[in-house]
Amino acid sequence: MLNPADPAFLSALEGQLAPGTLRAPEPRDLEEPRGRWQGRAGAVALPRTVAEVAVIVRTCAAARVGIVPMGGGTGLVGGQIMADGPLPLILSLERMAGLRGIWPQENAMTVEAGMVLAVAHDHAAGVGRIFPLTLASEGSARIGGLLSTNAGGVNVLRYGNARDLVLGIEAVLPDGSIFNGLKRLRKDNTGYDLRHLLIGAEGTLGIITAASLRLFPAPASTATALLDVADPATALRLLDLANTHAAGLISAFELIHRQGLDFLSETLPNVAQPFRPQGDWMVLLELALPAGLGGAEAVMAGVLEAAFEAGLARDGAVAASDSQRKAIWTLRESIPLANRKVGAISSHDISLPLSAIPDFIPRANTLLAAMGDFRVNCFGHLGDGNLHYNVFPARGRTKADYLNQRETVKDTVHDLVHQMGGSVSAEHGIGRLKVGDLVRYGDPAKLAAMRAIKAALDPLGILNPGAVISAA
Amino acid sequence: MLNPADPAFLSALEGQLAPGTLRAPEPRDLEEPRGRWQGRAGAVALPRTVAEVAVIVRTCAAARVGIVPMGGGTGLVGGQIMADGPLPLILSLERMAGLRGIWPQENAMTVEAGMVLAVAHDHAAGVGRIFPLTLASEGSARIGGLLSTNAGGVNVLRYGNARDLVLGIEAVLPDGSIFNGLKRLRKDNTGYDLRHLLIGAEGTLGIITAASLRLFPAPASTATALLDVADPATALRLLDLANTHAAGLISAFELIHRQGLDFLSETLPNVAQPFRPQGDWMVLLELALPAGLGGAEAVMAGVLEAAFEAGLARDGAVAASDSQRKAIWTLRESIPLANRKVGAISSHDISLPLSAIPDFIPRANTLLAAMGDFRVNCFGHLGDGNLHYNVFPARGRTKADYLNQRETVKDTVHDLVHQMGGSVSAEHGIGRLKVGDLVRYGDPAKLAAMRAIKAALDPLGILNPGAVISAA
Repeated sequence: MLNPADPAFLSALEGQLAPGTLRAPEPRDLEEPRGRWQGRAGAVALPRTVAEVAVIVRTCAAARVGIVPMGGGTGLVGGQIMADGPLPLILSLERMAGLRGIWPQENAMTVEAGMVLAVAHDHAAGVGRIFPLTLASEGSARIGGLLSTNAGGVNVLRYGNARDLVLGIEAVLPDGSIFNGLKRLRKDNTGYDLRHLLIGAEGTLGIITAASLRLFPAPASTATALLDVADPATALRLLDLANTHAAGLISAFELIHRQGLDFLSETLPNVAQPFRPQGDWMVLLELALPAGLGGAEAVMAGVLEAAFEAGLARDGAVAASDSQRKAIWTLRESIPLANRKVGAISSHDISLPLSAIPDFIPRANTLLAAMGDFRVNCFGHLGDGNLHYNVFPARGRTKADYLNQRETVKDTVHDLVHQMGGSVSAEHGIGRLKVGDLVRYGDPAKLAAMRAIKAALDPLGILNPGAVISAA
Repeated sequence: MLNPADPAFLSALEGQLAPGTLRAPEPRDLEEPRGRWQGRAGAVALPRTVAEVAVIVRTCAAARVGIVPMGGGTGLVGGQIMADGPLPLILSLERMAGLRGIWPQENAMTVEAGMVLAVAHDHAAGVGRIFPLTLASEGSARIGGLLSTNAGGVNVLRYGNARDLVLGIEAVLPDGSIFNGLKRLRKDNTGYDLRHLLIGAEGTLGIITAASLRLFPAPASTATALLDVADPATALRLLDLANTHAAGLISAFELIHRQGLDFLSETLPNVAQPFRPQGDWMVLLELALPAGLGGAEAVMAGVLEAAFEAGLARDGAVAASDSQRKAIWTLRESIPLANRKVGAISSHDISLPLSAIPDFIPRANTLLAAMGDFRVNCFGHLGDGNLHYNVFPARGRTKADYLNQRETVKDTVHDLVHQMGGSVSAEHGIGRLKVGDLVRYGDPAKLAAMRAIKAALDPLGILNPGAVISAA
C-alpha cells in the first residue's frame, strides 16, 4: 500500500534536493488533452540531473510514495494523470532538456528526456540530418514521454516506431539505481534488452532520463501526392505498387476518408482541399530520396503513371512546390483537430494485419449501423496497418446524446479488432484508459509475465501506480 | 538446485509424449563449432507442436530438470552446450520447421522456430520477397536460435538485427504457459514488449516456437564494388558519401584487411582476389534498388566517381555480372574460413561507436604489439560499427604457442573496447563463453535488473542453466 506525498514527506524530500526543485502543482500538471480525468499530486519535482532523479526515486521508495512521470503531457490514454489513490509526486523532466552530444558521421545524438521533439528535430537539422519521429504534438511532446509510450506518428512506415530509433537509454530504476545504457552501438548482444523493456513501459518500470537516438541523412528531394482511390483494398494495391517502384523511400502512406474532409469543411473551412474524391477515400503518398537517385518528382511520376494505368488511382494532385506540399500535410494534420471540434463518441487507435483492413472497415461500419445513427471518420497510417477509427454523433446531435452507448461502441469496435488479429492500442499505449482492455484482450501468459516483471523490478509499486497493469 | 535428466525422469517424460519424441544424444548434439566445450545431456526431445513443447517444459519444471534449447547449433559462444552441472534435457525444435502462413501483400510470413534460415529465404523468394537476415551459417542456423541470439550478419546496416525483423513471436515460458504473440502488426502498444525481452535472451527466459517475420520487396537491381581505401577513417568518410547518394539503399558496407587476403592466399588459394590494395584496407560496398529508380549500376557509378574525386578510394572493382558479384562475396565470406584454418589465439566480436573505430584499431594494435608477436585480422560490418578483431600467431607459430597469453589478449582487447564505449559481444551473444565478461563490463543496474527478471520468470532456473547470467 502506498503512502501520500504529504507535507511531512515533501519537506523531508526537499531537504535532499537543490532549492527550487519542488513546486506546487499547477493546472497544466493535472490535465490531459481529452479532459477525461482530473489529476492530483502533492507536488511537482523538477530535477536538473539524473543524480537528482535517483535521489527522488530512492526517497519515494523509502517512503512508499507513488511517482507519476511527466513528459509533455500530450498522451491520450491518461498515463500522465493519477486521478485517485494516495497523492503522488509528479516527476517532470522539463529541466533535463539538454543535448549531450551529436555525431553527424555516426548519425546519432544523445539528448535528455525533457527535450521537446521539435527541438530534437532542430538539432538534427543543424547538422544536415533528420530525427524522423514526427507527430502532431511535436511542439510539446518530450523525448522521455515519446519513448516511454513508444510513440508512432506518420513516419513509422519508413523509419519505424520510437523504439526503433533508439540506440541506448539512461534510466533510473524503481530502486533508485541508474542504468547507464547510452552506448551508441548498432549491435550489442550483451544480455537482456532492458532498453526495449523500458521503452513502451509508460514509466512503470523506470524513468528514462536520456537517450541516444538514431539520425538519418536528410532526404534531398521530396514528392507528395494526394490520390483518389476507390477503397482501402485498392489503396493497399497502390502501396504494393509504390513499394515495387520505391521500397525504402516511401515516407508516408496515409488513408483519408471523405468524412474527414466533410468535418474540415464544417469546422475548419480555411483548410484548403485540393479536390473531392469521387468516392469515399484518398491516399496521401510521399516519397523522399537521397541525392544520388535523381529527383523524387520523377519517381513519383512513374508511380502515378503506373497507378493510373492499373486503375488504382482515379484522380490526384501532386505538390508542385513546398507550399503545396505543406498544404497537403495541413489537410492531413487538421483532421484530428476537426474531429475534436465535432466531438467523438469514441475514438479507437487500432492496428490490423494489412490484409485484414479491407474487411474490417465495412464490418465495423455494419455493426455500428445496427446500433444507431453514427458518423465514422476512419483515417490513419495505412502503411503501418494503423487506423484511427473514430465514431461521431449523427449530424445535428452531440456526443452527450450518446453517453450511454459509448462503452458499447468501444467494445464493439475493439471486439472486432481483436477477433481479426489486431491491436486495441496501436500507438497511444495503455495508460489508465485501457487497463481493462489489456486484461480483456491481452494474452494471459503475457499478462502474467508482465505482472511478474513489474513485481520483480518495482516490488513496492511506486512507479506510475495504476498505469498499464492493474494491481493484482 | 536442479536435478539430472536421469532414466526415471526420462521414462516419466516419455509417457507424456508421442512415441519417438525422445532420443539418445548424438555427437552433433554435444559439439559446438569452435570445439571449446563437450556437451552432456540425458536425452534430446524433438517435439512436433507447441503443445508438446509446453508439456516438456512443464514436466521439467515439476522435476526441476534443466533444458538446453537447440537450434542449428551454430552459435559461437556455447549457448547451446552445457558442459557441467546436473545432466540436462536438450530441446531441439528441428521437427517444428513448418511455414504457417505467408502474406506477400503484407510483407510478412509466420514460420516455426526450427526452420533453417536458407529455407526461410526460399519461402520469401517464392513470393518475390526477401527475408534479409543473412549470415555465413544460413544453411544450418534455425529461426529460433537466430532470434534467441538476436543474430546480426551482413544486412544489418539496411534491415537491422534479427530483432528488427520480427513482428511477433510464439513462445513457451518457463512455467509451461504459451505466449501467443504471433500478431502480424507493425504497431502494437499493448503493454511490455515481451517479444524484445525473449529475443536475445538466448533461451534463458522462454523457448521461442514460432515467429511472424517481416519480409521486404526483392530489389530489382544490385551493384557490388570492392574498393581500395587508405584507412578506416577514410572508409567512414566513404560511408558518409554513399549515404548522401543512396541512404536506405546500401545493403552492405564491409571492411576487409590485407591480413585476411594474405590468409586467403595461404589457406584458400582458389578464392579469387580481384586486386591487391595499395595499403592495408578494402571496403565491400553494395547497393540494391527497387525497380522505379533506374539501375543500381548507375547509382554506384555516381558514388564511385564522387569517391575517386574526393580521394576516398584509390582503386576498385565493380561486379559486371552476377558471377563477379558472387566472387566478391565469396572473397568476403571465405575470410572466417581462412581464419579458422590459420587458427586464432583469440577472436573478438566487438562493436564501437562509428567515430571511435579509426582510433580503436591502431590503439589495440599497439597494445598487442607490446605484448608479443601477433598477426591481427580485423574485418567486419563497418557500417554497423561491428568488427571482428581476431588475433593470430606470428607466421611459423601456432595458437598452442600462445595458450598462456590467450586470456590476457582477450582482456586487453575487451578492456579497450569497453573503455571506448563499445560492446564485447556485438552479434554473437553471451552464451557461456562471455558470462564473466558480462559481469566485468556490464552495467551493474542492468545486471541486477536481469537477475530480477530471470528470477521472476524462471524462478527454478530450468531454462538454459548457466547461460547469459551466472547463478547469484
